[in-house]
Amino acid sequence: MSAPALATPATTDPALPYHHPVRVYWEDTDAGGVVFYANYLKFFERARTEWLRQRGVSQQHLKDSTGAMFVVTDTQVSYRRPARLDDLLDVTVQLVESGRASFVIQQQALCQGQLLTEGRIRIGCVDATTLRPRRIPEPVLAAMT
Amino acid sequence: MSAPALATPATTDPALPYHHPVRVYWEDTDAGGVVFYANYLKFFERARTEWLRQRGVSQQHLKDSTGAMFVVTDTQVSYRRPARLDDLLDVTVQLVESGRASFVIQQQALCQGQLLTEGRIRIGCVDATTLRPRRIPEPVLAAMT
Amino acid sequence: MSAPALATPATTDPALPYHHPVRVYWEDTDAGGVVFYANYLKFFERARTEWLRQRGVSQQHLKDSTGAMFVVTDTQVSYRRPARLDDLLDVTVQLVESGRASFVIQQQALCQGQLLTEGRIRIGCVDATTLRPRRIPEPVLAAMT
Amino acid sequence: MSAPALATPATTDPALPYHHPVRVYWEDTDAGGVVFYANYLKFFERARTEWLRQRGVSQQHLKDSTGAMFVVTDTQVSYRRPARLDDLLDVTVQLVESGRASFVIQQQALCQGQLLTEGRIRIGCVDATTLRPRRIPEPVLAAMT
Repeated sequence: MSAPALATPATTDPALPYHHPVRVYWEDTDAGGVVFYANYLKFFERARTEWLRQRGVSQQHLKDSTGAMFVVTDTQVSYRRPARLDDLLDVTVQLVESGRASFVIQQQALCQGQLLTEGRIRIGCVDATTLRPRRIPEPVLAAMT
Repeated sequence: MSAPALATPATTDPALPYHHPVRVYWEDTDAGGVVFYANYLKFFERARTEWLRQRGVSQQHLKDSTGAMFVVTDTQVSYRRPARLDDLLDVTVQLVESGRASFVIQQQALCQGQLLTEGRIRIGCVDATTLRPRRIPEPVLAAMT
Repeated sequence: MSAPALATPATTDPALPYHHPVRVYWEDTDAGGVVFYANYLKFFERARTEWLRQRGVSQQHLKDSTGAMFVVTDTQVSYRRPARLDDLLDVTVQLVESGRASFVIQQQALCQGQLLTEGRIRIGCVDATTLRPRRIPEPVLAAMT
Repeated sequence: MSAPALATPATTDPALPYHHPVRVYWEDTDAGGVVFYANYLKFFERARTEWLRQRGVSQQHLKDSTGAMFVVTDTQVSYRRPARLDDLLDVTVQLVESGRASFVIQQQALCQGQLLTEGRIRIGCVDATTLRPRRIPEPVLAAMT
């Protein structure tokens, strides 16, 4: 059980941002005709989840095998340009800080090369039952950095 | 802004529908300028939750104390007229069938007396851990009917 | 402007269901540990949107060029088995009825070959400004059937 | 079930925070058993909407009559403690900065007096058609400050 949540070890350069495509559907828009601002947090999280998955970390498996769960503790998001129905967004993930119990991800949502939204998301590791902070399991930390 | 606030009638006569007010916010709308159709299922559920609460049933407490959880097993919904930002909806709840392990709720969403959406929702009782069907705890069944 | 919303004409057999993959993220789940039932309507819609796109129909372009918009008028959904975080769903789309102003789509969500949820969704064509029923633009109808 | 219903104080003293009650429903939670972090942005917006409404500003009416629309341009949110199903939250709204085309709202979500989440939301005024920045209509600015 030394690498419980790891399936396929990652080989990509951690210095380069990870990219995840997100299509805008009706569910994402609001009556202003654009993507509802809170939904970028969903897009960012989908991208972070796929970034972790690409590094061999499945969050369901992580929880089941180690009792650890990631939670968002701080978000800072700037909205520059709107996205619309049917737009195909490019959502990036870049690890910019990492500690033993938390890390910070820098993220952008772009459309056709133009920056729409960017944010910094701090994520902490907690025990799934008590919701108290705990160390990130070593193999997961290694996979991320 | 002129729509009157709706008060929930204090009666618990099971033959009369229960009423729950729902305000339409940006989060509920889509780029068509109207409430996104899937969100009526949220409005209906909020109303069912308050109907249960008025009868003394808290779902979190139900789960913690008996291990029972309600799940939706079938929905039938017709969308007649759209709702828009700032509309104040009147969402009704009426028990139309009840068995030992499931029940059916008839629901409507109205705005200024006009029917917008109506549905029939079948709800089953399951064990929160195994997700297998189980009987509705007796006091809950008594409170509902 | 004879085929305003059409880009790439479709060549696939309309008798076979279209398949669209949907990954389950945190945003899709609820405190029951499973996908929140209303979210299957989102999954179904994403799949319908991609089915239309594969047939050359972009809804944003359709609205901009013809003023036509699709709206859901009736849904019937049965929930058989739950989906969980990280599950990869296979969502199907099959046209089962088509008229001049509305059509019916049969849809399923499966996970590893097991049926989780299935539904019938009736969709009407309306004028995007008045929200009144109108005929489906001919090239769109042709692309669908 | 024992949490008292919160009444909104009738005062319009801009120095005091406005209070808006938000009940946590299934739709708001995720598989971690707590409120999904992006949903606090919805709770904050519902409270801002009611704060504006209390001051006589309906956003739908604002858009229809002046062409002006509010958009969120920056958010900073810290998540301290989780909320759970059935919790009754007290969401506050306090104007902390106001300019001619944008303003900043400080917001908190509390449960039984404990701070769960707090944030600063910058909101800009735009033309609903072009989405370009514009001045906040004078009567709206006066109503807010």
